[in-house]
Amino acid sequence: MAQKASREDFEAFFPTLINDLSEQVSTTKLPANALKWFQDSLKHNTANGKLNRGLSVLDTASILLSRPLNETEYTHLATLGWLTELLQAFFLVSDDIMDSSHTRRGAPCWFRLPDVGMIAINDAFMLESSIYILLKKYFRDHPKYIDFVELFHEVSFLTEVGQLCDLLTAPEEKVDLGNFSYEKSKFIMVYKTAYYSFHLPVALALLYLQLATPGNLKQSHDILIPTGVYFQVQDDYLDVYGSPEQIGKIGTDIQDNKCGWAINEALPLCDANQRRILEDNYGQKDKEKEKKVKAVFEELHLKQRYLDFEEKEVTRIRDRIAHVDDSEGLKSAVFESFLNKIYRRSK
Amino acid sequence: MAQKASREDFEAFFPTLINDLSEQVSTTKLPANALKWFQDSLKHNTANGKLNRGLSVLDTASILLSRPLNETEYTHLATLGWLTELLQAFFLVSDDIMDSSHTRRGAPCWFRLPDVGMIAINDAFMLESSIYILLKKYFRDHPKYIDFVELFHEVSFLTEVGQLCDLLTAPEEKVDLGNFSYEKSKFIMVYKTAYYSFHLPVALALLYLQLATPGNLKQSHDILIPTGVYFQVQDDYLDVYGSPEQIGKIGTDIQDNKCGWAINEALPLCDANQRRILEDNYGQKDKEKEKKVKAVFEELHLKQRYLDFEEKEVTRIRDRIAHVDDSEGLKSAVFESFLNKIYRRSK
Repeated sequence: MAQKASREDFEAFFPTLINDLSEQVSTTKLPANALKWFQDSLKHNTANGKLNRGLSVLDTASILLSRPLNETEYTHLATLGWLTELLQAFFLVSDDIMDSSHTRRGAPCWFRLPDVGMIAINDAFMLESSIYILLKKYFRDHPKYIDFVELFHEVSFLTEVGQLCDLLTAPEEKVDLGNFSYEKSKFIMVYKTAYYSFHLPVALALLYLQLATPGNLKQSHDILIPTGVYFQVQDDYLDVYGSPEQIGKIGTDIQDNKCGWAINEALPLCDANQRRILEDNYGQKDKEKEKKVKAVFEELHLKQRYLDFEEKEVTRIRDRIAHVDDSEGLKSAVFESFLNKIYRRSK
Repeated sequence: MAQKASREDFEAFFPTLINDLSEQVSTTKLPANALKWFQDSLKHNTANGKLNRGLSVLDTASILLSRPLNETEYTHLATLGWLTELLQAFFLVSDDIMDSSHTRRGAPCWFRLPDVGMIAINDAFMLESSIYILLKKYFRDHPKYIDFVELFHEVSFLTEVGQLCDLLTAPEEKVDLGNFSYEKSKFIMVYKTAYYSFHLPVALALLYLQLATPGNLKQSHDILIPTGVYFQVQDDYLDVYGSPEQIGKIGTDIQDNKCGWAINEALPLCDANQRRILEDNYGQKDKEKEKKVKAVFEELHLKQRYLDFEEKEVTRIRDRIAHVDDSEGLKSAVFESFLNKIYRRSK
């Protein structure tokens, strides 16, 4: 029987990897303050997350094996899980600088700490480099070593392409709704989020278990990319409609000029008057203007449209899951597990 | 006979690689403005450099083969050469943000361009990712493919460690000469500069020609790391003593609080009075204070000390070169070529 990995065990595993990385960097005999800095960055930038990406590597492998993981498997898969968290940390540290954010996971952003500032850029690079140091240490003799490396390269690049599109479409200071489109927002969801959050963890588990046949990878991709888009649409929806108590933060997408689901759903529906209201009020740091945007969203029944989208999309994904070809060892339960974790989530 | 690679030919080769990268990124069907942005970043951030790193991959291979390169070899080695230039571009784009620089190679820094700003961080990531896209395209079937990949990972990480030490030792706003030391400045020279500028190009040529035995790599490392340190000491010396006409820029290391050769040579030599002058005047954006620092350097005869260092160090490196073991295909001419390019350079 597959067992759901415990968050506590997974968290308790990370210090081993910090030790490995410290040992590796210490071969350069770097000054003590630089070693401590690197360790602090590793800790701060992986703390307080939900760890969903990392845990899903373990869960996926356990489902594929139809049994709990043995000790060696746990060590290897928890390492791969933490590599997805390190990749996320690399992106978040730098995204926060590019977005001028202030807090992340309830704590100040790394670059906002008094002594850090722009050194955070180099820290982001070192978080990324840590992925490849650990891959080499633990997987150099794995038959799929080069595939692991290439998977991280590819997913990183696709995420960077998604981030570029996001930054060019919705610069914080220059509001131009004419620049938005459903296609661009979908592009950003697919490339900036879905690949690294959904496709990557399953591809890693498949590679580790040597089940990453072209057929299995394609099936997995074709289910998980839409699942990732659905997840991001939920995120955008909750940012506007979720209560701060539910989602654990105050939504800022409207004020931040984000090219997300809600605004792109609204634009093709609104009349000239509503369009003017959106143009005059979207993307500005002003609570009253935000309220006016939300009022237009109400008039356009975005809440109901979201619920309709959710049902339609989940039906479509469930249908694909039902038709998974398991002849090469893939299991539909992998994807059910992902979908069940996010279906109708309120946080 | 080995032939010195022409800078013009090498430059003319780059558009092919921009095409390859454009094709690759276009598989995502990214918006046209994002594709153009990526191409502009590739061009701007590789332009106007000396291209010494890239050219030395070609020169090294030609020396090792004792003949001009054939067409296939040229294509492959020019590609590897451009990968070293892309790595350099990745570092320079981000270093310029971290150092708040204004110009680079006679043009505005990329992040200073009106529309770029912090998007430059993501552009730096994409420059780095480009290395691995091109490695995969051209070298996936090379027997040393994984070694190429690991070499870039390793050299990137070591350079990041050097950069971290530099940033922590000499923050621009907080002058504390007590934090400086000869060891730290040597560490920064080795890790921030010597690995990627000197060790990397030769290691790439050795790997390509399948001459990268452990012995050849070690010999090469043990000559090229000191050569790289010598190069960086020259750089620091020229920053203080070179005329702007010679070096093509106005030296700013003293005003920028750099933990370089000159200040670390001076500190152990100076008396209490001279030390006070250095402490009161180093690392401040003030021409008069810079003059006072330079006056102390004069009193300590740093110019002569540099010339003595140069002769001693070059003698030591030449001695190692003379003792190169060529039984596995390495050639001392590789290292002579590097040393001749930089010995007594004035720019």
